[in-house]
Amino acid sequence: MLDCVIIGTGAAGISAALTLKANGKSFVLIGNPELSLKISRAEKIPNYPGLSLVTGGEFAAALKRQLKDVEIEITDERVTGVYALKGSFSTLTESGKTFDSRTVILAVGVESVRKIEGESEFLGRGVSYCATCDGFLYKGKTLAVIATSERFEGEVEYLAKLAKKVYFIPLYKNVGFAFQAFENVEKLMRVPTEIKGELKVSGLVFGDQKEPREIPVDGVFFLKESLPPSALVGGLETENGHVAVSRNAETNLRGLFAAGDCTGRPYQYVKAAGEGNVAAHSVIEYLRLAGKNE
Amino acid sequence: MLDCVIIGTGAAGISAALTLKANGKSFVLIGNPELSLKISRAEKIPNYPGLSLVTGGEFAAALKRQLKDVEIEITDERVTGVYALKGSFSTLTESGKTFDSRTVILAVGVESVRKIEGESEFLGRGVSYCATCDGFLYKGKTLAVIATSERFEGEVEYLAKLAKKVYFIPLYKNVGFAFQAFENVEKLMRVPTEIKGELKVSGLVFGDQKEPREIPVDGVFFLKESLPPSALVGGLETENGHVAVSRNAETNLRGLFAAGDCTGRPYQYVKAAGEGNVAAHSVIEYLRLAGKNE
Repeated sequence: MLDCVIIGTGAAGISAALTLKANGKSFVLIGNPELSLKISRAEKIPNYPGLSLVTGGEFAAALKRQLKDVEIEITDERVTGVYALKGSFSTLTESGKTFDSRTVILAVGVESVRKIEGESEFLGRGVSYCATCDGFLYKGKTLAVIATSERFEGEVEYLAKLAKKVYFIPLYKNVGFAFQAFENVEKLMRVPTEIKGELKVSGLVFGDQKEPREIPVDGVFFLKESLPPSALVGGLETENGHVAVSRNAETNLRGLFAAGDCTGRPYQYVKAAGEGNVAAHSVIEYLRLAGKNE
Repeated sequence: MLDCVIIGTGAAGISAALTLKANGKSFVLIGNPELSLKISRAEKIPNYPGLSLVTGGEFAAALKRQLKDVEIEITDERVTGVYALKGSFSTLTESGKTFDSRTVILAVGVESVRKIEGESEFLGRGVSYCATCDGFLYKGKTLAVIATSERFEGEVEYLAKLAKKVYFIPLYKNVGFAFQAFENVEKLMRVPTEIKGELKVSGLVFGDQKEPREIPVDGVFFLKESLPPSALVGGLETENGHVAVSRNAETNLRGLFAAGDCTGRPYQYVKAAGEGNVAAHSVIEYLRLAGKNE
């Protein structure tokens, strides 16, 4: 049983990892080994104390070097769910791995891709964030698959093999997936605006208010770098789309903490790094008190 | 009228200054130009994201260089009071300067010197933090003067010239003040434990519970790097000795924000830097909304 699972490799997750490491705690740091794209793609960072006008790439390189210096490895997985058990958590990944821990720090950032209408409402009723988790439910059905990067093309292909029909909607350039090879795949270059349905998803709407176009679908897959926190963790309280936290990074679930952009604005590296530190200290205190009560 | 006065040159104050500067706001950054002693005296810093195992001295040097790069100067003053006016603040310094601003960010850290019993209770009734502000009230009287560093020896001398009798209590080594030259100065090497009095201060107590020794005094001066926030700002809400703040760094006084160690644990550089960033963003938002209502 690990002391902690940290989800996310932006400034918040890395900061939490450095502090837990310095305090001798056991943990895994799960996320993209190339770090959050929001870091490496930044141009100049004018206000990170201690680093004069670094570029995002330089900052990312400094963080990766620092992780290596203190022997912290990044576990390259995509988390699909965090389940609160009695006094512990199970974190599941897309590849089927499970990590058990006393505490969890959510540092998953915020998606720059806006949610569309109906996305939260139909989660679990036709909306999914994980092809390998839910794909089998849509065998022989019609799907819309919205992908935010080429990292997810394997999943698109997996769904194309399962479903009767796939509307493939890439939200990125340089598509590598040979969708032409699949008779049942149709590529759409428009951004959907709404998910329709009653009990379950029945259609996806595109275009402006005046001239909407609706395609009939049984399911909609959103393939994103990270899942929205409320989709990752059942029962997690949010406020205006952000995880609701106390000044100590506590969420409404005991033992589960959150830090960084996912807790709200300002979306700033040093704010995220500061919160990661606070979350790690709260984890340490939580483990100390839990140890006393055993 | 400045947009903001930032009080304190630790990680929080510097972080706030960098962000206000990047956003084109006008401000002064008031504090020790050698930065917070807590930074420069640190040995190794193991968990500041982006800087691998820097020493405190290296971190301080990096911050000073960064301030210079973006042309932020430190105003070398000691703040003695912040006064809330209608929609603005006046910040007064020991040397008699006044800075008027729309907002204030308190980033004064926490004193490593513990408060003694009665210190808060008798503030303004015999307890003072500023020799040049209140010294004249004690002409011909008996004083205890507790100094935390050699920086305050000028003030000790000033008080020695005014008062009938001064008990000089240095809480540091290498005393440079030639107290022997003053017939009315007596140096004590014990740490006081309690201030006694009824309406006003009447004595200072030393030693343990069993064998306390009390000296009769009319006033007690604490000469510290920074004043406790509640002494700096009248009406400021505190919680267990820390400034009470929201997640947005707001205090109970509109337009006055706080960041860093003075808001509570963990006392960590990156937590302080993160909060300075948040406070600066709250200042920017506050100014924007105030501008709309004018």
